[in-house]
Amino acid sequence: MDAATIERYARLIVRFGANVQEGQIVAVSTEPGKEELTRAIAAEAYRAGARFVDVSSFDLHVKRARILHATSDLGYVPPWYGERILALGEHRAARVGLTGPASPGVMDGLDPQRAGRDGLPFLAESGRVVNERTTNWTASPCPTEAWARLVHPDLEPADALARLWEQVLHVCRLDEDDPVAAWRDRADVLVGAAHRVTARRFDALHFEGPGTDLRVGLLPTSRWTAARFETVDGLEHMPNLPSEEIFTTPDPERVDGEVRATKPLVLSGAIVRGLRVRFEAGRVVEVRADAGGELLEAYTRRDAGAARLGEVALVDRDGRIGPLDTVFYDTLLDENAASHIALGSAYAFTVGEEDLGRVNESSIHVDFMIGADDVDVTGVETGGARVPVLRGGAWQV
Amino acid sequence: MDAATIERYARLIVRFGANVQEGQIVAVSTEPGKEELTRAIAAEAYRAGARFVDVSSFDLHVKRARILHATSDLGYVPPWYGERILALGEHRAARVGLTGPASPGVMDGLDPQRAGRDGLPFLAESGRVVNERTTNWTASPCPTEAWARLVHPDLEPADALARLWEQVLHVCRLDEDDPVAAWRDRADVLVGAAHRVTARRFDALHFEGPGTDLRVGLLPTSRWTAARFETVDGLEHMPNLPSEEIFTTPDPERVDGEVRATKPLVLSGAIVRGLRVRFEAGRVVEVRADAGGELLEAYTRRDAGAARLGEVALVDRDGRIGPLDTVFYDTLLDENAASHIALGSAYAFTVGEEDLGRVNESSIHVDFMIGADDVDVTGVETGGARVPVLRGGAWQV
Repeated sequence: MDAATIERYARLIVRFGANVQEGQIVAVSTEPGKEELTRAIAAEAYRAGARFVDVSSFDLHVKRARILHATSDLGYVPPWYGERILALGEHRAARVGLTGPASPGVMDGLDPQRAGRDGLPFLAESGRVVNERTTNWTASPCPTEAWARLVHPDLEPADALARLWEQVLHVCRLDEDDPVAAWRDRADVLVGAAHRVTARRFDALHFEGPGTDLRVGLLPTSRWTAARFETVDGLEHMPNLPSEEIFTTPDPERVDGEVRATKPLVLSGAIVRGLRVRFEAGRVVEVRADAGGELLEAYTRRDAGAARLGEVALVDRDGRIGPLDTVFYDTLLDENAASHIALGSAYAFTVGEEDLGRVNESSIHVDFMIGADDVDVTGVETGGARVPVLRGGAWQV
Repeated sequence: MDAATIERYARLIVRFGANVQEGQIVAVSTEPGKEELTRAIAAEAYRAGARFVDVSSFDLHVKRARILHATSDLGYVPPWYGERILALGEHRAARVGLTGPASPGVMDGLDPQRAGRDGLPFLAESGRVVNERTTNWTASPCPTEAWARLVHPDLEPADALARLWEQVLHVCRLDEDDPVAAWRDRADVLVGAAHRVTARRFDALHFEGPGTDLRVGLLPTSRWTAARFETVDGLEHMPNLPSEEIFTTPDPERVDGEVRATKPLVLSGAIVRGLRVRFEAGRVVEVRADAGGELLEAYTRRDAGAARLGEVALVDRDGRIGPLDTVFYDTLLDENAASHIALGSAYAFTVGEEDLGRVNESSIHVDFMIGADDVDVTGVETGGARVPVLRGGAWQV
């Protein structure tokens, strides 16, 4: 992509997505192969007055080497990894993450039991800092050649990269004259939907579609949230760019039924395809998949909360990602194309204080997509009355 | 370079250079463009029983963006940078650094006053951990295409890279059947020379050659050291691979005269050429250069010790780097081709306890090469007697 477009994208990420303030430390999480956008983000952050840009590049090939060869505990992480994240919160830093699988296939052929024990680059401390709302942050996709070949295998590599960039720029509204204004409009719609669904105080959501019959209990104070976050200091930011979802924290003890993933998901570099999961009393009791199922199953055994839900999210059909009808193999894009649930840690700020003790805790947070136009979402009231929420991907409330 | 050769090089670095032990954390300092060797080192470290390989990739392009655009203090570094280094010492970690300019020219055109205020990726804490001898570590060159073009501009890029690899493998003794045995032999020679020069208890060294007439005072307990280091726990390692030098800590208050650098030096990505420096009573009082002089001068103003010497090193002509007659623009290689001095922090373990208060302290450590076959090195005894040490690059003691 040309430098001017990359700079324009970096500006949206830094100024609008993360909303970097003068004097802030800016942490950037990236991978080998994403240098160009990383550097553009660093430059823009410094132009925005950043005190220091702290780039952290995680190489999944090094993780592969560990899973292949290490003889000691694969769950061990040096203490300074988590301490850095907590310090970012204490310093009221900004954080930018670049998504998109830079090394597709890097986890192929590994023992899923071993791979499932190493959750990096995800850290439990990241969840904590998100919940404490002490950092203004955003995550955005960064196209690379390897990723483009995965998404568009039928195109020539250069065309695949150009197509992926075009799609990313489209879903990020960078093909608008005023992308920030476009995002403000869309965020208003999502925030409105979140308020309306919250106001219904549903006891549970019922997902019904091919292979799916799943009830997800909600907590009494579950509050639907969208697009815009605010830090404890009142700084607004867009945690996902793009974002098309409204989400909340479910009751981790009341999830029951079968669910079929409507898209593949990428888990630490490995692809899980054809996933079916069965829940009983909140817990995953069965994981089946055409590929990658054992890895996901190993993840669910990481800790007590890893087999329970930390998030439920609804996505309508008016977003820009779904209509592209493309599997991106990138959770950020795919989860914003379809309603989804996530195993593991919850966003505690989406419940009231009285339910804080009931939200799920875990060192993992794994989203998978369960929504589609043929999946109905119905709200179930405390008395048992049923209220359509999404039909054919359109809001009914 | 083929994967088998890279793996062989990684094995020498991990098993012999750093001497990684089972259960150790292994920190690897690298740069974008050095992924292949970094991954091979990680794999070998895990095969050697590493508990965790912590790769830290520093991108000089991000530093360039800071110097160009940042509005706040360029000397600021988040506390977790230094804390991580100190924690590596506390954990008795192994450390591996990959040298060689991955981004030649990245610092071109910057204001040298601003560039001189940002010393990263060097951290004062690194000097402290080296002095406390709590980590077993090594630094080795990692060829990249960009570096090869800088060293061999007359060759086609592919040939330049092949030539640089060939040179690096040669100076690392990887063209020997048993590189470790070759290194043990060479290290024995260097350790022997270090013992003989130490035994003379010179009061000063006198460097004389074209443009050079420099006296470097030594401390009463200055001890010449070579090739092999030992940690506080008695673990042997080769801090530089290759290493052809013997070095010690000079008296930071007794350095006088003029010195001409015999090779260019690379300073945080910028090249300093045609350097001449004048010292009075230990301090740099004048810096001139054909290029990059202002940057070096800015470095010498970083703190009180930055304009004084922390190291003096002698290199004979029997090493493998000098005969290649190549300017590598990499301090590790160039400093092991010729006698050199370093501004800034000293290696405190090369003096006795009674002189510990007299060694130089600084947040910088900048080596520059002052030796050549036409530079005589003479030892000056306390009474004034003069003893030839190096003539035509050959040991005289």
